[in-house]
Amino acid sequence: MEKFNSSITYDRHLWEVDVQGSKAYSRGLEKAGLLTKAEVDQIHHGLDKVAEEWAQDTFKLNPNDEDIHTANERRLKELIGETAGKLHTGRSRNDQVVTDLRLWMRQNCWTLSALLWGLIRTMVDRAEAERDILFPGYTHLQRAQPIRWSHWILSHAVALTRDSERLLEVQKRINVLPLGSGAIAGNPLGVDRELLRAELNFGAITLNSMDATSERDFVAEFLFWASLCMTHLSRMAEDLILYSTKEFSFVQLSDAYSTGSSLMPQKKNPDSLELIRSKAGRVFGRCAGLLMTLKGLPSTYNKDLQEDKEAVFEVSDTMSAVLQVATGIISTLQIHPENMARALSPDMLATDLAYYLVRKGMPFRQAHEASGKAVFMAETKGVALNQLSLQELQTISPLFSGDVSHVWDYGHSVEQYAALGGTARSSVDWQISQVRALLRAQQA
Amino acid sequence: MEKFNSSITYDRHLWEVDVQGSKAYSRGLEKAGLLTKAEVDQIHHGLDKVAEEWAQDTFKLNPNDEDIHTANERRLKELIGETAGKLHTGRSRNDQVVTDLRLWMRQNCWTLSALLWGLIRTMVDRAEAERDILFPGYTHLQRAQPIRWSHWILSHAVALTRDSERLLEVQKRINVLPLGSGAIAGNPLGVDRELLRAELNFGAITLNSMDATSERDFVAEFLFWASLCMTHLSRMAEDLILYSTKEFSFVQLSDAYSTGSSLMPQKKNPDSLELIRSKAGRVFGRCAGLLMTLKGLPSTYNKDLQEDKEAVFEVSDTMSAVLQVATGIISTLQIHPENMARALSPDMLATDLAYYLVRKGMPFRQAHEASGKAVFMAETKGVALNQLSLQELQTISPLFSGDVSHVWDYGHSVEQYAALGGTARSSVDWQISQVRALLRAQQA
Amino acid sequence: MEKFNSSITYDRHLWEVDVQGSKAYSRGLEKAGLLTKAEVDQIHHGLDKVAEEWAQDTFKLNPNDEDIHTANERRLKELIGETAGKLHTGRSRNDQVVTDLRLWMRQNCWTLSALLWGLIRTMVDRAEAERDILFPGYTHLQRAQPIRWSHWILSHAVALTRDSERLLEVQKRINVLPLGSGAIAGNPLGVDRELLRAELNFGAITLNSMDATSERDFVAEFLFWASLCMTHLSRMAEDLILYSTKEFSFVQLSDAYSTGSSLMPQKKNPDSLELIRSKAGRVFGRCAGLLMTLKGLPSTYNKDLQEDKEAVFEVSDTMSAVLQVATGIISTLQIHPENMARALSPDMLATDLAYYLVRKGMPFRQAHEASGKAVFMAETKGVALNQLSLQELQTISPLFSGDVSHVWDYGHSVEQYAALGGTARSSVDWQISQVRALLRAQQA
Amino acid sequence: MEKFNSSITYDRHLWEVDVQGSKAYSRGLEKAGLLTKAEVDQIHHGLDKVAEEWAQDTFKLNPNDEDIHTANERRLKELIGETAGKLHTGRSRNDQVVTDLRLWMRQNCWTLSALLWGLIRTMVDRAEAERDILFPGYTHLQRAQPIRWSHWILSHAVALTRDSERLLEVQKRINVLPLGSGAIAGNPLGVDRELLRAELNFGAITLNSMDATSERDFVAEFLFWASLCMTHLSRMAEDLILYSTKEFSFVQLSDAYSTGSSLMPQKKNPDSLELIRSKAGRVFGRCAGLLMTLKGLPSTYNKDLQEDKEAVFEVSDTMSAVLQVATGIISTLQIHPENMARALSPDMLATDLAYYLVRKGMPFRQAHEASGKAVFMAETKGVALNQLSLQELQTISPLFSGDVSHVWDYGHSVEQYAALGGTARSSVDWQISQVRALLRAQQA
Repeated sequence: MEKFNSSITYDRHLWEVDVQGSKAYSRGLEKAGLLTKAEVDQIHHGLDKVAEEWAQDTFKLNPNDEDIHTANERRLKELIGETAGKLHTGRSRNDQVVTDLRLWMRQNCWTLSALLWGLIRTMVDRAEAERDILFPGYTHLQRAQPIRWSHWILSHAVALTRDSERLLEVQKRINVLPLGSGAIAGNPLGVDRELLRAELNFGAITLNSMDATSERDFVAEFLFWASLCMTHLSRMAEDLILYSTKEFSFVQLSDAYSTGSSLMPQKKNPDSLELIRSKAGRVFGRCAGLLMTLKGLPSTYNKDLQEDKEAVFEVSDTMSAVLQVATGIISTLQIHPENMARALSPDMLATDLAYYLVRKGMPFRQAHEASGKAVFMAETKGVALNQLSLQELQTISPLFSGDVSHVWDYGHSVEQYAALGGTARSSVDWQISQVRALLRAQQA
Repeated sequence: MEKFNSSITYDRHLWEVDVQGSKAYSRGLEKAGLLTKAEVDQIHHGLDKVAEEWAQDTFKLNPNDEDIHTANERRLKELIGETAGKLHTGRSRNDQVVTDLRLWMRQNCWTLSALLWGLIRTMVDRAEAERDILFPGYTHLQRAQPIRWSHWILSHAVALTRDSERLLEVQKRINVLPLGSGAIAGNPLGVDRELLRAELNFGAITLNSMDATSERDFVAEFLFWASLCMTHLSRMAEDLILYSTKEFSFVQLSDAYSTGSSLMPQKKNPDSLELIRSKAGRVFGRCAGLLMTLKGLPSTYNKDLQEDKEAVFEVSDTMSAVLQVATGIISTLQIHPENMARALSPDMLATDLAYYLVRKGMPFRQAHEASGKAVFMAETKGVALNQLSLQELQTISPLFSGDVSHVWDYGHSVEQYAALGGTARSSVDWQISQVRALLRAQQA
Repeated sequence: MEKFNSSITYDRHLWEVDVQGSKAYSRGLEKAGLLTKAEVDQIHHGLDKVAEEWAQDTFKLNPNDEDIHTANERRLKELIGETAGKLHTGRSRNDQVVTDLRLWMRQNCWTLSALLWGLIRTMVDRAEAERDILFPGYTHLQRAQPIRWSHWILSHAVALTRDSERLLEVQKRINVLPLGSGAIAGNPLGVDRELLRAELNFGAITLNSMDATSERDFVAEFLFWASLCMTHLSRMAEDLILYSTKEFSFVQLSDAYSTGSSLMPQKKNPDSLELIRSKAGRVFGRCAGLLMTLKGLPSTYNKDLQEDKEAVFEVSDTMSAVLQVATGIISTLQIHPENMARALSPDMLATDLAYYLVRKGMPFRQAHEASGKAVFMAETKGVALNQLSLQELQTISPLFSGDVSHVWDYGHSVEQYAALGGTARSSVDWQISQVRALLRAQQA
Repeated sequence: MEKFNSSITYDRHLWEVDVQGSKAYSRGLEKAGLLTKAEVDQIHHGLDKVAEEWAQDTFKLNPNDEDIHTANERRLKELIGETAGKLHTGRSRNDQVVTDLRLWMRQNCWTLSALLWGLIRTMVDRAEAERDILFPGYTHLQRAQPIRWSHWILSHAVALTRDSERLLEVQKRINVLPLGSGAIAGNPLGVDRELLRAELNFGAITLNSMDATSERDFVAEFLFWASLCMTHLSRMAEDLILYSTKEFSFVQLSDAYSTGSSLMPQKKNPDSLELIRSKAGRVFGRCAGLLMTLKGLPSTYNKDLQEDKEAVFEVSDTMSAVLQVATGIISTLQIHPENMARALSPDMLATDLAYYLVRKGMPFRQAHEASGKAVFMAETKGVALNQLSLQELQTISPLFSGDVSHVWDYGHSVEQYAALGGTARSSVDWQISQVRALLRAQQA
């Protein structure tokens, strides 16, 4: 049962922020007249020693240290004696643990933000460098229209900018101080929570002590943020897994991100991408687990909330690894522009053929039908769409004339899509500048 | 298979926004020179007629109307002839459907915001009116410390303010225009997306056409918003279910929100609260379902995305009902202050007893231990904690003196918790003003 | 609130089983001496009339009919008078509703079983007919080894046999009678539950009245059964979506299961497969939702349990549609054996090349390495693996001799995999007979 | 990336079964003529040494040991030289890892079965010992009818018997041998899979090599089994948390399963029960995560499947701990029969009052109404239901006579519920014998 109840195996991650929180709290007690300046100094000195032991991996756990908070306070008492017993005045593990968790996550989210920005930057740089390469755009995995390779890269980069925007919002809600809420009723000793806030550099203080000690919205939000971000990355991974099949052959993972087979000597498997794809499940599972744990829980602190930390630590580690691996994959990915070009086929220009007729005045629905007839005619004759003669096309519509030959140029095709967000070069450039501006704004 | 593929049974909800989107798009085509002013007028006139038929429930579906978009365009053609065939020029169902869904959700989220604000206001008003009532605060469902009843109400209201804040953020991301993205490559006809944005009053335009037509972040975010909000409401419902048991007897649901038993004549069951609690599961299930559908999906539009709409409609309906029922429950709830008072017991002041000693100079850890001894002594003697004589207390610590009697006053107890966020009257008043200020800011 | 509480909009699906359950219960009351034979006849006659009205869609709901049970009893009273008031003696809605649901699900699961068996049979028949067709087997979506097309079909059919096995187990647990459990304490009127069981043809009776009225294991199990079955079908759908891309071109969906594009005339999209894939999410969402609703619920009946029925009805409908569509897809799918053959390449025989050396006595690890060298040599020289001359191979290992040429025959390759479960013809035939035997056993 | 790809940190749990599987496989190679008897002996001897090193914690991992399979094979080669390189002949990591996982889970599930049976036995023993204690049965958490305390215990025990039944079914599907499936195509070397099955004592062999190496149904089923079992335990925990509140005061956890408060000296918190309740979320999260990982995965082995093992290990550990803690809680729980008795109130007999009238010939619906009137009359007069005089009752119905006094006896009440599954002593005894018989059957 002690093992079942104990959290020290994982909440030791919090050693540093626990020390940080305790130092700030002792300042609060000083201002409230419950600690003298000398006692505060003694406590800080002792806490610095505790931190040093953790940092140097010399901190020795006792069997009774059920969590990081009791471990640190126990050690502090060994180091500085009875004054240690004053530190917890008016504080409860309920407000202490959630303060620690918020401090830890605040720091960690900055790290994740930086990694995410790094990934987006890598993608945008690549998009800029390779914007003259065309390849097939797919919908329903069927070849749809020619697009720029950069347009594909940017489609994923743009999705990730929403993730980085959302992470900033989550961080804003993480960055709220619960310390001074006690176990449930608040702090009865006149501790100045604004001072605590300033000491720990939080953006605001929590409004209600019962809510403050038992709400885990910021954890749920973080886990959902990670789930949605992983969903994006799973879709990008899926694309790249497909593009690196023999059948597509558009890209090739660098050796560092592939692995061989224990049985088949010729194999090079995209394990890195598959792991990214799979971890969308794991991360979401943590989110689902936490929400189920929270559902129907009586208000205020219940031990059920102890489930929050392992989820946070595991998901943080996973996100950090995934973002770094994804950055590595993108920056080392080899592309095969010649295969991409070869995969473009005239039938992908059927839509443009319809637009050709639209530009000559035909209503789109008729043009769409006419183009469909051309596709059918080409299929029936067993030729490519652009092999139909002008006469043949004119049996479908008299609006066809010699200039229809321009339709069959892939470069010409993509340049038509010049409305903002489209695949024309100007629009791709605009996207690049927009994403870069977004990143600058988010980093500010 | 046709039935399997069809979405008209539910996407008919979109009739109004589909008309709205088409009207705006025709303006875009006009500016691009693809429709004349007269054609636009004709189209608008026809669309108005379509809308009128829907509004008056006289719109007749054809068996071939697989979705609302084809139904409306088919009907438009019947009404105005071939010009209708020009409306879809450069547009795809891919950008059309996601524009419609965003328009619908934008409108719906305002409704939900208003309902949520109404619920919070009801709670805050009640908190203000009943702030002199004390009752037990629980942690781990064990009696912990005396608190104000209003402090409990506010703990849930404050949680809901985070939900309303988050909903505004979701709305911001809903309010982005995808129209003009075509099926994948963008719009090739020079449609001015800024004009479309302005026509439809969106806050911004999407950056990348591939992403725009296939990302459903705003749906996932909305479903998660609802899941977290429902988690809060499930916790409040759980509290109230407990408080309305015979054993607690703190509150009584009004008859409108209770139901009887088909078997047991004496029963009054809190069905309304149980339904609120249960629907946290249903709503989260929709969120989980959508994320699983999105996981690993190849980029751009795939038919899988059709799963988004039923989830949105069902969850929107559920949230609307739940928020209204919750508001009704809170505003009609009867409370039993005398039972609340009776449930306060001296052992809930053990923490205050420790603070008494702290104020006399004893380190908290020792004071906590001393108070624990007093609790044990009272239990052993079979008396209430406040029945221990001064002499008995002094056997535990000589710091006890006559003024310890003040500790046993519940009103005195709560007033100590005056740090911001605590249960003292001043802090409760502060909370009320903070929440009201938040609501004003959010509504602006 | 009434609308919130009401379930009649969906539990009307239960009209028939509700009548069935009531008829049986009246027999129980008769044996217990609480109804005369004449009263039972009167009740049965009335219930038959109720059923007739439902069947002919002439049953008129009252605004007070909050659920199907009250609706039917209200109508019965209108039809036969006060005797109707005796029917509910000793029964509660708690045991009534769960009896109805079990009856409905029992019937429905047989339908689903039959559909599932039909799908498996269709697959096995196809596997038998096309077992001479070879194509690439993939792992990690990289070409791995030549396999029989039938081997692929059977890999999915075998997975589905586990689903049909599991469904039988779920049915066993559905088929247990809760009637006679009352609201919580049981039945006080000596109703013979064995008689009820026999009347309703259940396999067993529930053991404990508190558990019987509030456990929904059979619902959770059914939803999970559906989730796992959908996961299988989502994987098969994913394969077929890939195989029907231009790049793979192994299969082509019949027109009935494809749809065109509103924008791109040349497109044929595998919408049916995408919908199957997507519905894995929806179905699992329902499972997740129910489990979250159940989590932490106080024992016995709580209104939260009302969430069970919509989940069951929706998932049943979805499964029925999906299984029929999947059967249609498989039975009408066109395959392109020539493209399949063309996709086989000599490097997929690298494993066989290693086995060649193993058979000549080389330890596998060395053989794997030697074969890897051959692959590398071929790549470096820019030739296919089977184009390396014997001399070249002998620079890698002197064990290579003239008979190595047999390795390059794909038909020879697959025939090696003759251990049970492998891709040799004999093993494929064995699989077919095994699956057929399983189906026969399950249907018995 | 290497760290990202590596699984050795957790799959080392498989060391023992990996050795076991390799020993069996070498027998298969011997029969197939690919290993001599001497080589098999050498390999077995080496593998025993490997196992010994793991058992004694002296096995040294290399940085290149990415998983347990490569680690063991690498070490075997160091110990016995080149013969080690023959062990993997015809085997792939794909069939090896899933064989290992099945072996591990088979063993682990027996342990969990034994723990679950132990818990059920503890509950049944307690139910037998305390079957004369009555207390309130609740529905909707409102007092409903008097029941035996044992009836409550058995309601949870009976739920757990379904879990143990389901676990046996999962074990049946775990106990199927995939070895001999290679990477995808099967085994080309004539390995006798029936021999492998017998060597490893599996119940059957897998039918299709592609399915065998990539299906994880048995993992999903195990995780769902655990989720449903935890849902049951979360409901039992919720009940006990409520019953151990001050307000209910029916039970008291032993000190070993409670914890104190860092702030409030009087608190005794039911942490053990709260942890059980919370872990329903964690366990289900793993189930959700795995299903999401599996959704839409291309068939055969993909690295995504590597996510299976951590889920299995974590959930197995959690279940083992939870089952032991639950057994400890139940066996040491103190109950307060006097509080239970005191909580029974005459209004809980209102249903029995209705039955009294039914027995006198009144149709139930009228009797229910009459009893409801009595409840209302008592409430209005401010007396208990059993304090209404006979005359007062007769104003409601002339059927009331002196024998109505028997209704007010709680012991008499429960004895009426003698139908199977009810709360009468005979039925409780029947339940006890039924559950014991079930356990005996399951253990056989």
